[in-house]
Amino acid sequence: MADAPPATTRQVILKSRPEGWVVSENFELREVPLPSPASGDVLVRAIYLSLDPYMRGRMDAAKTYAANFEIGEPLQARAVGEIVASENAAFTVGTFVFGLLDWADYTMISGGKGLRAADPALAPLAHHLGVLGMPSMTAWVGLREIGVPKPGETLVVSAASGAVGQVAAQMGRILGCRVIGTAGTDAKVAYLLDELKLDAAFNHNTNPDYLAELKIACPEGIDVYFDNVGGAMLEAALDHANLFARFVQCGSISQYNLVGDARYGVRNLTHITRKRIHMRGFIVSDHSARMGEFLSEMAGWLQSGQMTYRIDVTEGLENAPTAFIGMLKGENFGKQVVKIGADPSED
Amino acid sequence: MADAPPATTRQVILKSRPEGWVVSENFELREVPLPSPASGDVLVRAIYLSLDPYMRGRMDAAKTYAANFEIGEPLQARAVGEIVASENAAFTVGTFVFGLLDWADYTMISGGKGLRAADPALAPLAHHLGVLGMPSMTAWVGLREIGVPKPGETLVVSAASGAVGQVAAQMGRILGCRVIGTAGTDAKVAYLLDELKLDAAFNHNTNPDYLAELKIACPEGIDVYFDNVGGAMLEAALDHANLFARFVQCGSISQYNLVGDARYGVRNLTHITRKRIHMRGFIVSDHSARMGEFLSEMAGWLQSGQMTYRIDVTEGLENAPTAFIGMLKGENFGKQVVKIGADPSED
Repeated sequence: MADAPPATTRQVILKSRPEGWVVSENFELREVPLPSPASGDVLVRAIYLSLDPYMRGRMDAAKTYAANFEIGEPLQARAVGEIVASENAAFTVGTFVFGLLDWADYTMISGGKGLRAADPALAPLAHHLGVLGMPSMTAWVGLREIGVPKPGETLVVSAASGAVGQVAAQMGRILGCRVIGTAGTDAKVAYLLDELKLDAAFNHNTNPDYLAELKIACPEGIDVYFDNVGGAMLEAALDHANLFARFVQCGSISQYNLVGDARYGVRNLTHITRKRIHMRGFIVSDHSARMGEFLSEMAGWLQSGQMTYRIDVTEGLENAPTAFIGMLKGENFGKQVVKIGADPSED
Repeated sequence: MADAPPATTRQVILKSRPEGWVVSENFELREVPLPSPASGDVLVRAIYLSLDPYMRGRMDAAKTYAANFEIGEPLQARAVGEIVASENAAFTVGTFVFGLLDWADYTMISGGKGLRAADPALAPLAHHLGVLGMPSMTAWVGLREIGVPKPGETLVVSAASGAVGQVAAQMGRILGCRVIGTAGTDAKVAYLLDELKLDAAFNHNTNPDYLAELKIACPEGIDVYFDNVGGAMLEAALDHANLFARFVQCGSISQYNLVGDARYGVRNLTHITRKRIHMRGFIVSDHSARMGEFLSEMAGWLQSGQMTYRIDVTEGLENAPTAFIGMLKGENFGKQVVKIGADPSED
């Protein structure tokens, strides 16, 4: 398992900042020498990288909630990998770890910073980036802290087949809600209905009159809206919301690649007062104190078969930019990961 | 004090529903016979009517949080008046009362429904519609329940010389905040600075670059935004908000008279997620259980001179429509009331 550490690594760097939509020219694949590990260093071979919509914000120069990517430097992602060299007593070669790695075959982590063990006995390694990782905890925190759905209430989840959406939607079903999902292809809509057993779903690309769709799907109005897309869907959800509805503002993927007047203007915010709506944004990392509670509940749902999780795997570091661009356009089907190297736990 | 009840009364009725801006043709003044009081009835002579922005919503056919006004029927308003005839043992002729009255010289209240005594010894009668009434409690609930400003934080209040805004702004000052107000004339801005002692203020009509104004007035960003206007000011406040800011969605007077695409589209709601903003709408009547607490605190501030309150009095029932239309355009200076008849408590 522990071959000699390689002398070089491939990396994907941020070549230029996107203006609006991300394009492949914003990235560059390069090969650089790997230094020998200094004292405390840990060298990690990437197995799976997690691609997530929030990373779009890190490509801008403007400060977002996560630190920005630097031009000329490798992009970074949550990832699982294997330790292939270690000058750090806390980390053993051959161990699987979870942490923030470069978009690269290998990343040197000074002091082993942020690395945690990933147990392949608990779930397949890629699941540590999904249903047992950040996207799933995002859904869990959003519903536990903000949405707080009660049995019998109506929950609408936009982008409900996505990394976060599929967990939010199934949680709503487990908690006894009527759950409606939106997705961008008929295959995804079929998945929501047939696999996730949602009560209703519609294709937001082929059915642009969102308000009409919501009226059909939610005859009793919307009590909790879990928003992953923003824009026109958010506006329609406000129009169809019930009194005292909760709006979980998780993301706005429809808006991330738009600038200035191209961004959607939401014209009906007066509903927030009239309907006494509670709208709140959140970032999962603010709630890391609840990680144990989340893992315990989610592992239980996985084990009982109440929760399922779909992953979309792209093969090869060189294809990471294309996968990222595709994800921003909704071309992924399930949680997007990139498989960088062999997964020995699969054997 | 108790002359024979009159045989007729003047009333202002809703003649037609406004499309967009309210116009004088939407109202009609008429004179109708007054029936003799039946058993349980109370006849009230109006002294002051309260005109408030939320009433604009009641003029539409669409359901708002208050019941709609009916075409051909008198409009209604919170009011103080004097009982001039009573077939109800609970109500004595000559008593001052607070309640929901017609836009009329006289209103017959079946069973005395909703009438409460108004004590002129506590404060001048018109104050029962303002600083001791619904607008003031709206400000109090908004800050106590949603804004929860901490000493040293920055509070921005839009329409800060209005019925609600002037209380919200002074409360912020009393609670130890840096307070910034916006208003629509230079005289109002001078009032905010000189009388209410706010830290900064600007004229939102002559300074349309709200974001630039907020950056100057709030060098440390916005922690609490008390929104009475909606639209472009709300968008600018989102742009300049701090992490974990609270947005108290009290009203949107800039939007009430606009329909369809004329409504302002807020394009930067992604900040709600990025900045973890908590935005919540509310209606004061949901919080009536806290009335005693509110009255006690507000009366204390009035007595100590920490709280002042400006009322804009229009004379005469026949001028109520013009006063209402003017208020929607920001022509009032302070809380808008209409004096319908003599106030014996002033003698």
